[in-house]
Amino acid sequence: MATVTIIMGSKSDLPGVKPAYDTLKEFGIDTEMLVLSAHRTPDEVAELTKNADKKGIKVFIAAAGKAAHLAGVIAAGTVRPVIGIPVKSSFMDGLDSLLSTVQMPSGIPVATVAVGGSVNAALLAVQMLALSSPELSAKLLDYKEKMKKDVLAQNESLQKEI
Amino acid sequence: MATVTIIMGSKSDLPGVKPAYDTLKEFGIDTEMLVLSAHRTPDEVAELTKNADKKGIKVFIAAAGKAAHLAGVIAAGTVRPVIGIPVKSSFMDGLDSLLSTVQMPSGIPVATVAVGGSVNAALLAVQMLALSSPELSAKLLDYKEKMKKDVLAQNESLQKEI
Amino acid sequence: MATVTIIMGSKSDLPGVKPAYDTLKEFGIDTEMLVLSAHRTPDEVAELTKNADKKGIKVFIAAAGKAAHLAGVIAAGTVRPVIGIPVKSSFMDGLDSLLSTVQMPSGIPVATVAVGGSVNAALLAVQMLALSSPELSAKLLDYKEKMKKDVLAQNESLQKEI
Amino acid sequence: MATVTIIMGSKSDLPGVKPAYDTLKEFGIDTEMLVLSAHRTPDEVAELTKNADKKGIKVFIAAAGKAAHLAGVIAAGTVRPVIGIPVKSSFMDGLDSLLSTVQMPSGIPVATVAVGGSVNAALLAVQMLALSSPELSAKLLDYKEKMKKDVLAQNESLQKEI
Amino acid sequence: MATVTIIMGSKSDLPGVKPAYDTLKEFGIDTEMLVLSAHRTPDEVAELTKNADKKGIKVFIAAAGKAAHLAGVIAAGTVRPVIGIPVKSSFMDGLDSLLSTVQMPSGIPVATVAVGGSVNAALLAVQMLALSSPELSAKLLDYKEKMKKDVLAQNESLQKEI
Amino acid sequence: MATVTIIMGSKSDLPGVKPAYDTLKEFGIDTEMLVLSAHRTPDEVAELTKNADKKGIKVFIAAAGKAAHLAGVIAAGTVRPVIGIPVKSSFMDGLDSLLSTVQMPSGIPVATVAVGGSVNAALLAVQMLALSSPELSAKLLDYKEKMKKDVLAQNESLQKEI
Amino acid sequence: MATVTIIMGSKSDLPGVKPAYDTLKEFGIDTEMLVLSAHRTPDEVAELTKNADKKGIKVFIAAAGKAAHLAGVIAAGTVRPVIGIPVKSSFMDGLDSLLSTVQMPSGIPVATVAVGGSVNAALLAVQMLALSSPELSAKLLDYKEKMKKDVLAQNESLQKEI
Amino acid sequence: MATVTIIMGSKSDLPGVKPAYDTLKEFGIDTEMLVLSAHRTPDEVAELTKNADKKGIKVFIAAAGKAAHLAGVIAAGTVRPVIGIPVKSSFMDGLDSLLSTVQMPSGIPVATVAVGGSVNAALLAVQMLALSSPELSAKLLDYKEKMKKDVLAQNESLQKEI
Repeated sequence: MATVTIIMGSKSDLPGVKPAYDTLKEFGIDTEMLVLSAHRTPDEVAELTKNADKKGIKVFIAAAGKAAHLAGVIAAGTVRPVIGIPVKSSFMDGLDSLLSTVQMPSGIPVATVAVGGSVNAALLAVQMLALSSPELSAKLLDYKEKMKKDVLAQNESLQKEI
Repeated sequence: MATVTIIMGSKSDLPGVKPAYDTLKEFGIDTEMLVLSAHRTPDEVAELTKNADKKGIKVFIAAAGKAAHLAGVIAAGTVRPVIGIPVKSSFMDGLDSLLSTVQMPSGIPVATVAVGGSVNAALLAVQMLALSSPELSAKLLDYKEKMKKDVLAQNESLQKEI
Repeated sequence: MATVTIIMGSKSDLPGVKPAYDTLKEFGIDTEMLVLSAHRTPDEVAELTKNADKKGIKVFIAAAGKAAHLAGVIAAGTVRPVIGIPVKSSFMDGLDSLLSTVQMPSGIPVATVAVGGSVNAALLAVQMLALSSPELSAKLLDYKEKMKKDVLAQNESLQKEI
Repeated sequence: MATVTIIMGSKSDLPGVKPAYDTLKEFGIDTEMLVLSAHRTPDEVAELTKNADKKGIKVFIAAAGKAAHLAGVIAAGTVRPVIGIPVKSSFMDGLDSLLSTVQMPSGIPVATVAVGGSVNAALLAVQMLALSSPELSAKLLDYKEKMKKDVLAQNESLQKEI
Repeated sequence: MATVTIIMGSKSDLPGVKPAYDTLKEFGIDTEMLVLSAHRTPDEVAELTKNADKKGIKVFIAAAGKAAHLAGVIAAGTVRPVIGIPVKSSFMDGLDSLLSTVQMPSGIPVATVAVGGSVNAALLAVQMLALSSPELSAKLLDYKEKMKKDVLAQNESLQKEI
Repeated sequence: MATVTIIMGSKSDLPGVKPAYDTLKEFGIDTEMLVLSAHRTPDEVAELTKNADKKGIKVFIAAAGKAAHLAGVIAAGTVRPVIGIPVKSSFMDGLDSLLSTVQMPSGIPVATVAVGGSVNAALLAVQMLALSSPELSAKLLDYKEKMKKDVLAQNESLQKEI
Repeated sequence: MATVTIIMGSKSDLPGVKPAYDTLKEFGIDTEMLVLSAHRTPDEVAELTKNADKKGIKVFIAAAGKAAHLAGVIAAGTVRPVIGIPVKSSFMDGLDSLLSTVQMPSGIPVATVAVGGSVNAALLAVQMLALSSPELSAKLLDYKEKMKKDVLAQNESLQKEI
Repeated sequence: MATVTIIMGSKSDLPGVKPAYDTLKEFGIDTEMLVLSAHRTPDEVAELTKNADKKGIKVFIAAAGKAAHLAGVIAAGTVRPVIGIPVKSSFMDGLDSLLSTVQMPSGIPVATVAVGGSVNAALLAVQMLALSSPELSAKLLDYKEKMKKDVLAQNESLQKEI
């Protein structure tokens, strides 16, 4: 059982995707990570989306590069929100991944984050789940506060140096 | 009171944004549309995000073009999900709008849809709200079924023509 | 029964795709045209590829725009050659369609032609079928000869004008 | 005698092109690799296409970078399918190579694969040859099955790690 | 009290921004450097612009990367000139930063320099301040003269080498 | 005598540049407009910058398209601030103009505004002049207030329509 | 007999290429215009370059679009200067034509002018021929003077209008 | 006295420009290399073009990066052919340099070679000078022959390896 399912096209994408997993865990979300490919294991991807409700999946996060069809193919099979992480490919820093993920036709949305934006993908999933969880909302406010303090601390440290 | 708030930077963006409003209404979502600019009315934007919970806002949709800061500025002021619609500008068909919206730094996600993707922005908002509403989920499944039937009908019509 | 199956994501793509159909007919190839969407009718697309051999399909031609996943999704389900036509979208003249079609990951090729290159998609299909048909090879040589004569005729006409 | 002829513009392209050769050999296809340049040895390229049938060449694979004219020049001289591999150049990761290869004018198709996509170029050639070879078709299905198993194995390995 | 305030979105931008600070110091301008983020510390940024006159700030320099909203958000809160330095991001060498900074809507200018152009940002600030300071104008003429001599010296050195 | 000199490369640029002139006039700034070309009248451009101080020129605004060298060439000849307006060319909506204007080498800044951003060019010039003019600063605050009221009025009008 | 030979890939390119012809005629250069295609009439192109000296051709001008190989193929067959005009295609305003023309590999130069720059192509040819013709040099100086006067006249006309 | 003058914007460009110098020397052309900047030493550049005839300069080669105005500024001051080498900048591999060099307005041509194409710049200069020198033409034919032999040798070496 997992509330958020993270799918990556190849295990080699793990280092880039791991921060999404870690962030979700930090927020206490049941999360699973799978290696599944829209092109090499299309049946398994279709099965995953068909069984999503039984497995309790609320949000999908899909990370893929180049002609990145994974998020779109998952979105085709579910009405749960699908968040797409364009993986930085070796061609134009992932412009191919970005356009393949974000430029979805009308009717099949993919919530796209920045190229390599796995932490934001996780935060976006938490924000969605927080819509019905005041507890998660409070954690998100804490996270925001912590980010603010971190910037102010950086500023203080800079003032001492110069 | 509005569950989804759509903000556009200028009233001239209305024709592009209206399909988002209409789609949300079609799903029976309380929706408001506002003209507010991150650059011309920064205080009003800040106030909007600060009062979001009181107003019952669950999801923001922001549509802006060129150096499109609106979605990001809203996301800076809330932990509710912010969906960004890059408005097609007159420069490279909105590449500026797309990159300004999607390439958000870590910590402040904007769920970005395609350039001009206002229907998908609305559907994404519905998907988020449907996480705690079986009724909305059912409507989304109907919508998906209707899209499928429409494609099959297009196919039948094509077979008759050729 | 069809030797070449042309699939387009929406009937509105027909004007751009029709030249592929006409070219194949001109070469006497059994051709069918279908409207099927990787995102709106994923099951029908999967079924098509699974029954391809029974239907006698030798080559697929898929035309799609924006985040163009159609050719890739078909290629995932067959070992027959899949030719992708990137449809000119309203974003950067189809750069999104081109990259989504051509930048396929290793293992799942899509033979990509130019943005809007439907005649070339058809010729490529004929070239593939001609590998085991001297008759088709001869027709292709005729076609090439005709193109050459057409250029030379254009040149003659130009010489008379200036 | 070779069924597939791989041509590269410079011997320095060998490391990028070798996987195409190895893949074709893995499928048992008679393959030759040549260094020939559209710009430095135009006569030799023209001669190669003119003698293609005598040599038994069924499919050409051409790899070139920058203003990559090699595939197009070969396609000008034959009606056999020509597969183009855009070599990753030092300018915009091969955008020049990609556009020079894929954007062919009507009448002269080049089946273009991803920048650096030499394995896919080989698989595409095998798919073409498999149209009249049930044995090659079976090998392609095996290859596909192996890719699927590899992804599933990656997934199992991931599940053990996390 | 500072005449020029340099703001960067993260302390990690310091190496790229430092040359702006050093150049301003070289011209004897009172300069402060702050770490403040449009997205993580929006209130502090708003406060900074509101108190700018009290603090004596004449010119702002803002350095940010990716979806670089910092300069625009500062410009929204002040009528003092705001100079934007697009920080070189890991995506397309900062094309996202450049477009997010320069493509400002009518009414809210950001004086944009080259990607990574921190020395030019400083010189531009000095040029603005020099409009009412003959002394600074003289220093700028000296700087220009020094640049010219440096080029001529490079030339002389080259002539000796070849 | 002119405080701000606007230079355009060709009289055909006038419609795009006129709003800069009108905006400066609205602020009561002495402004002249000249047609001068960096490439066709290099001597006249050099002379203009050499006599700038005598003519009382405080700020230059240069509008040019394609390989837009005008702003850079003027900046080479003066220490007064030079504002560059990239004119929208027929190639990639002015990407050539933008990069030719903004990517200046270290030492020679050009304050670049958006492609076609002539109003912002004027406002930026006013902001520079306002550094020593409380009256101009007050006018800029009025302008800002007016923009805000205009957005709020657009919003009110929208609320009545929907 | 022609001193300059202009080749275009299709007669439909004539309107864009005609200004090159007219400019060369204006300078009194023997000029011919041919329709020849690198892909459709490769033998005729090869023959043209082989007989160039006999025909007295000093300079080639080649205009082509999309995957524009024409200039490169001509340059492969001659040591006479080849000037390439990238024809504005329907894809990214001719970025494909530009890169296919200018990014030539080492050893085979193509002197590339702007997208659609046919007048400059002609002037460049005249400049080359003028290297051994004081008369042509004088005409070029006149042309330059006329351009200067035209700009100054535009300026005078502008001064009267405002 | 120099027949070809190579100008670079900064001595740091020398490694990229040196191959042009070496190639010209290999062909026995009197060549000088200068460091001169369009922006830092505009007067010296203007003077160079004015004295070009006295110095015997037949062809200019200008290498510059970023907002690369050097070739254009030189072309503004002479009717001798100007060859532009776009120097690979740190932004998009020199797309800024390429567009700033090649997209010249009508009337002022710059013969542009590939980004970093210094050998081709030299060969182009030799081709121009060869128009009135049968000896240089013969050397160019030798050079071409040597390139061809080199490719054929690479091919032979490849055949031995595989």
